[in-house]
Amino acid sequence: MDITFINDPKLCLLLPYIYVAWEDDIMTKKEFGTLHSFISGQEWLTKAEKDFLKQKIDYDSPPSRTEMSQWKEMINRALTTKSPKTLFELGFSVANTERDAIDEADYLSAVPEFAAMEASMGIMGTQVMAGLPNDRDTITTRYSTVESFNISEMAALLDGEQGPLINSVREIIGSKEFELGTTTDTAAYRELVMHWCRLLAEKGLGAYAYPTGHGGRNDIEGYFAIMETLSYHDLSLVIKFGVQFGLWGMSILSLGTEKHYRKYLKQVGTLELPGCFAMTETHHGSNVKGIETTATYNHAGRTFTICTPTPFARKEYIGNAAVHGEMATVFAKLIIDGHDYGVNAFIVPIRDKNKNTLPGITIEDCGRKMGLNGVDNGIISFTNVVIPYENMLDRFANVNEQGEFESPIPSDNRRFFTMLGTLVGGRIGIPQSALSAAKTGLAIAIQYGDKRRQFGPENGREVPVLNYRMHQLRLMPYLAKAYALHFGLQYLTKRFVNRKEDDMQEIEALAAGMKAYTTWNTRNTLQECREACGGKGYITENRIDSLKNDTEIYTTFEGDNTVLMQLVAKYCLKEARKEFGEMNVSTVLSYFLEKAKTGITEKNPFATRNTDEAHLKDPQFHQQAFQYREKELTASAARRFKKLVDNGLDAFDAANVMHPHMLQVAYAYLDRVFLEQFAEKISTCENKILHEVLTRLYNLFALHRLEENKGWYLEQGYMEGPKTKAIQKMVSQLCWEIRQDAVPLTHAFHIPKNCLAPIVTTRIEEAS
Amino acid sequence: MDITFINDPKLCLLLPYIYVAWEDDIMTKKEFGTLHSFISGQEWLTKAEKDFLKQKIDYDSPPSRTEMSQWKEMINRALTTKSPKTLFELGFSVANTERDAIDEADYLSAVPEFAAMEASMGIMGTQVMAGLPNDRDTITTRYSTVESFNISEMAALLDGEQGPLINSVREIIGSKEFELGTTTDTAAYRELVMHWCRLLAEKGLGAYAYPTGHGGRNDIEGYFAIMETLSYHDLSLVIKFGVQFGLWGMSILSLGTEKHYRKYLKQVGTLELPGCFAMTETHHGSNVKGIETTATYNHAGRTFTICTPTPFARKEYIGNAAVHGEMATVFAKLIIDGHDYGVNAFIVPIRDKNKNTLPGITIEDCGRKMGLNGVDNGIISFTNVVIPYENMLDRFANVNEQGEFESPIPSDNRRFFTMLGTLVGGRIGIPQSALSAAKTGLAIAIQYGDKRRQFGPENGREVPVLNYRMHQLRLMPYLAKAYALHFGLQYLTKRFVNRKEDDMQEIEALAAGMKAYTTWNTRNTLQECREACGGKGYITENRIDSLKNDTEIYTTFEGDNTVLMQLVAKYCLKEARKEFGEMNVSTVLSYFLEKAKTGITEKNPFATRNTDEAHLKDPQFHQQAFQYREKELTASAARRFKKLVDNGLDAFDAANVMHPHMLQVAYAYLDRVFLEQFAEKISTCENKILHEVLTRLYNLFALHRLEENKGWYLEQGYMEGPKTKAIQKMVSQLCWEIRQDAVPLTHAFHIPKNCLAPIVTTRIEEAS
Repeated sequence: MDITFINDPKLCLLLPYIYVAWEDDIMTKKEFGTLHSFISGQEWLTKAEKDFLKQKIDYDSPPSRTEMSQWKEMINRALTTKSPKTLFELGFSVANTERDAIDEADYLSAVPEFAAMEASMGIMGTQVMAGLPNDRDTITTRYSTVESFNISEMAALLDGEQGPLINSVREIIGSKEFELGTTTDTAAYRELVMHWCRLLAEKGLGAYAYPTGHGGRNDIEGYFAIMETLSYHDLSLVIKFGVQFGLWGMSILSLGTEKHYRKYLKQVGTLELPGCFAMTETHHGSNVKGIETTATYNHAGRTFTICTPTPFARKEYIGNAAVHGEMATVFAKLIIDGHDYGVNAFIVPIRDKNKNTLPGITIEDCGRKMGLNGVDNGIISFTNVVIPYENMLDRFANVNEQGEFESPIPSDNRRFFTMLGTLVGGRIGIPQSALSAAKTGLAIAIQYGDKRRQFGPENGREVPVLNYRMHQLRLMPYLAKAYALHFGLQYLTKRFVNRKEDDMQEIEALAAGMKAYTTWNTRNTLQECREACGGKGYITENRIDSLKNDTEIYTTFEGDNTVLMQLVAKYCLKEARKEFGEMNVSTVLSYFLEKAKTGITEKNPFATRNTDEAHLKDPQFHQQAFQYREKELTASAARRFKKLVDNGLDAFDAANVMHPHMLQVAYAYLDRVFLEQFAEKISTCENKILHEVLTRLYNLFALHRLEENKGWYLEQGYMEGPKTKAIQKMVSQLCWEIRQDAVPLTHAFHIPKNCLAPIVTTRIEEAS
Repeated sequence: MDITFINDPKLCLLLPYIYVAWEDDIMTKKEFGTLHSFISGQEWLTKAEKDFLKQKIDYDSPPSRTEMSQWKEMINRALTTKSPKTLFELGFSVANTERDAIDEADYLSAVPEFAAMEASMGIMGTQVMAGLPNDRDTITTRYSTVESFNISEMAALLDGEQGPLINSVREIIGSKEFELGTTTDTAAYRELVMHWCRLLAEKGLGAYAYPTGHGGRNDIEGYFAIMETLSYHDLSLVIKFGVQFGLWGMSILSLGTEKHYRKYLKQVGTLELPGCFAMTETHHGSNVKGIETTATYNHAGRTFTICTPTPFARKEYIGNAAVHGEMATVFAKLIIDGHDYGVNAFIVPIRDKNKNTLPGITIEDCGRKMGLNGVDNGIISFTNVVIPYENMLDRFANVNEQGEFESPIPSDNRRFFTMLGTLVGGRIGIPQSALSAAKTGLAIAIQYGDKRRQFGPENGREVPVLNYRMHQLRLMPYLAKAYALHFGLQYLTKRFVNRKEDDMQEIEALAAGMKAYTTWNTRNTLQECREACGGKGYITENRIDSLKNDTEIYTTFEGDNTVLMQLVAKYCLKEARKEFGEMNVSTVLSYFLEKAKTGITEKNPFATRNTDEAHLKDPQFHQQAFQYREKELTASAARRFKKLVDNGLDAFDAANVMHPHMLQVAYAYLDRVFLEQFAEKISTCENKILHEVLTRLYNLFALHRLEENKGWYLEQGYMEGPKTKAIQKMVSQLCWEIRQDAVPLTHAFHIPKNCLAPIVTTRIEEAS
């Protein structure tokens, strides 16, 4: 009788190995050799049997596809009865399924050899099992979205008092008139955006922040809510809106006086008078103090002559300038009788009502940009443009009848920064807009990831990509950050609205820092969202294109992020110096006491190695760890700077060396503020279920930031390996848990459907 | 006599404080109070003197601007003679400059009080000094580009043997006909790109890799050099070129046989026959094994019927499909008599010579994309499209006269992956293209940073932004990476060109890994370049827009990066298992010996804390550290996976948990390979000067990667805080040193001028 697997069941012990050898798509000739020699080594096989088996694994004469199918069927039959853990066990099931004729006991001696060979073939039995057909229902397959909380309640909690206004704006941008397009015709796009702006102005949204006496509602908080909500829609619209009503209008309100309000504000708010904010120059962006445009006072007739001395002093990237602007707030150095009185602001007409540029004004178009092509950025230069005396925005300085300079702020430097300080509002609108863009991206990527299936257990259904740990790790931390930043920015707005003079430094630092922190976070979020949506994320109609390219400049305008972070860090050092500086014993003492306390509660071996779940989720641990990082980085920055200077380094060179360190100081400061505000918000949330959901997000935010900084904490000996590893594990676990809430958590943003993407709003992707 | 600073010189001791109080743009009312009470506390001042001083710091009646100017002049006079370190010292110089009348000795007792107050005011004397006018020439100001090596020699070293070919391609893309545009008209753009492709085909560049017998030069290495160089130019051109000559042409060459070569290759190489590569489907991108398009064999007439069973099985994102393609290599499941014989490839005509789509073919346009809008991506579906028998690409399988399936590879799975393996070339072209894009971005950002000046010491000239440490830290590591990856990809190409069958698994892993590693690096590099160029980087004409948006999809196509990295890690584990698996005593022994050695030379307290410069720059230290990370991550991955499965987790779920860990395994493997190849390249460089320059870049690459992974090394106890801190310091130092070479290092890429940006090629930015 011929030797076959059926006739000679014990040969079936090797069938799985042979099958895998041919099935496996990565086995090399060499590995066939290993199997070959293994067979030769088995004493329990006769020469004939060995020859039979070897011929089945002859690399140069593979089995027919038909034979492969037969083997596969035999293995399938075996798997229906048992679920073996190794190829060896599988071999027995095959043998005994075909003919119950083999006793495992007879082959125990061979087990280690089989195991060794299994390994040497580069196959882990279990992995192969995974590859072998058996319809499996795995945890990963079963996992899915669970709506564990009330979406409207969460949305209400996010919107807060501004809910009604936010909803009315949602309705407007959700309406037919605001249908998004993907035109590449710049001219048409700019007109569409202008048209949208007019519609919003008609509804009184433009003037929202202006005094009631001048067509507004005197509601700056409302204005921010409008910006935030509009930002779910086209961001060119948001920036155009911000340039007109924020920069242009607010410059008049902040730097001008009653006579200017009366003359301009109403028309600005209705968009009858489109205008620009002309500060940045070709050679002076971040260092605006250095701008070179001049406003020379003429005693005769009390006028000013505005001039652009060099091509590098042209006003560049000016929104509303290329097409629509009719006037501009121009920042220029005031010159009286040859003396320079520092930077002041002037209203300069640039176009007549028919949009013809006026004499002495030259305007170039900035041309195509990465994004925001619905905004008409231009370059303005002035050749002896004479403006009347009243056009000087004179809240902080003026030229009196005698042609003398007068100001309550004697220092030109200080006066300029005071002027800038009044414009800090712009830095609050930008991060809110950036955050809304990030939310839209997250809503798209997460809802798509919940539907999009790819890969899965063999013969099992494919799995929603959002069930993959890797995919969760890419998106969940950004979802948590979106919530953290949302509450942090609400706090900033409140602080700004209720500001007192002595708060201004802190508020300016918070605004600068949150602008940088949030816009960088948006950049990273949208990058991850694009990749998480694969090819679909690359198609313009799915919105990540415009969200990403429009917000790309957010990290640069309204102050370059790296520069802003330096300002924040300087503020931190200044505050710290007050603390260390005051030779007030009690303070010093309390400081050292605190250090000591830190030592006791945090740096002792128990704390540095504590991997207890309760501890890792304890807000006190998070807050101490965040505060420690902020304090330590700030103190060491002060020490280092002093040391560098004491060693004879010029202060400017020393500051240069310190820049990277300062960036960390700023990050630590902002992390701590965001953490505190998130915790604060949760503590006031009475809805038990929302409280639970938000706490998970809070924990992820806190632990994820600790993980991102684990290198520093380990260097400091503040944590040890076991603890940072435990944190990493918990981050992954939290991502897994939050994945179930993820889709509802994005629905809670209440983003109008027409602002989302076809991949999530149309049904075609759904079935599968 | 009135009390004035001049009449009463000792009051000058306080002048600097008063001046600073008003000049400083961040002093609060509270801080004025501090100064106020300080003055009250000074016994050496009379009541009248105190009143005088207090009146000078009355927050509500500031000095006139004129008075401020007088004070400033007094301070300037004092600074011309001396350069004091504190405000207190400055006070003395002021007093003694005005009237040499004050003896420091009389006031020694007051010194600590003054110092305390200085601190409490939140001012470090030195910082104020920095703010006070004195024309200073700082290290940061002086620093600049130094051409320390011969650019042509470096360029030659980079280009290697392909130099002549690369230069000829540089000439072509540098020519008038290849002038870059910024059109937003998709149709026009697509035609321009097609026109460029024709010009390249005419010059024989398209067929470069094809057999000499079929119009080619049989030079695949040359083909890669062409792709690499073209990638300095428009990337739509590169992708269109790659789709036509790479994907479409190479699918015929790799999957077809002589009859197909004769029939198609020549026309493909001349672009007479534009074609597509139709594999990806709407629902199957990464998991391409699951595609659902069918090719049913018809015994009568020996034909195949191609069908798209569901909308989700449409062939999506197919390059050349929307407009130009006339044929396509279509991947479909072969069905014979109702049996599924797995995925095979077929040539399917889709348009006639007049570009009319053929019966049964439906083609939709993918529409606007983030980038690559010069490539006509389309969606193809098939309704009972009948093709002749010969159109099956039959290198790996065919249907014989009897209508039976025949293949030398019995496993459908294995056959498919073998087919894919022959197409690995695509994964080599993409990272090369991505790297060229990164180089272009670096050339623009670095050359701009060398010219762009912003900020500087008071009254000193503004400083090139590339002199700022922060700016260097943003760009120099990417410059080092560009060089590291350049040599790594050259190594991959060589390995591919000289491949033997047993190398294929390693080469496929290297190609997949380097594709992911390089395209992610390009994404990060271009992001940093955009921000480093500020607003200028946002303007389309400066190229970062297109570079960034065109390469955005590189991380997704030719295999999603996260998926590819999983394949790489699987390869690493497989290799490791071979090592651990073979029950060969000597191997096991040598493995443990190695572990032991590792312990001795690396994990001992001396090594973990060694901050010695020579040690940190020792290639052996780098290689050991990189190898240790690779080994340890791989071994622990194997352990963890086994543990999870032993604990009863389904292998598929276990794999899911392991994904993030596996990503780290892949990174560690690739880092080690790139490091080795960079070191290897340097060791063979005989030019002493280039050797020195490259060694600096190598050190930065090595140490920067160690720093990026310091968290892991600290967790492992492989390094301790002092060492990782020393590494961070050295990274910053290396960035500072390399900054001098940075501009020449980008010139060495020899990027055609017309492929760079106006901000660096036009002169307008230069003066300042």
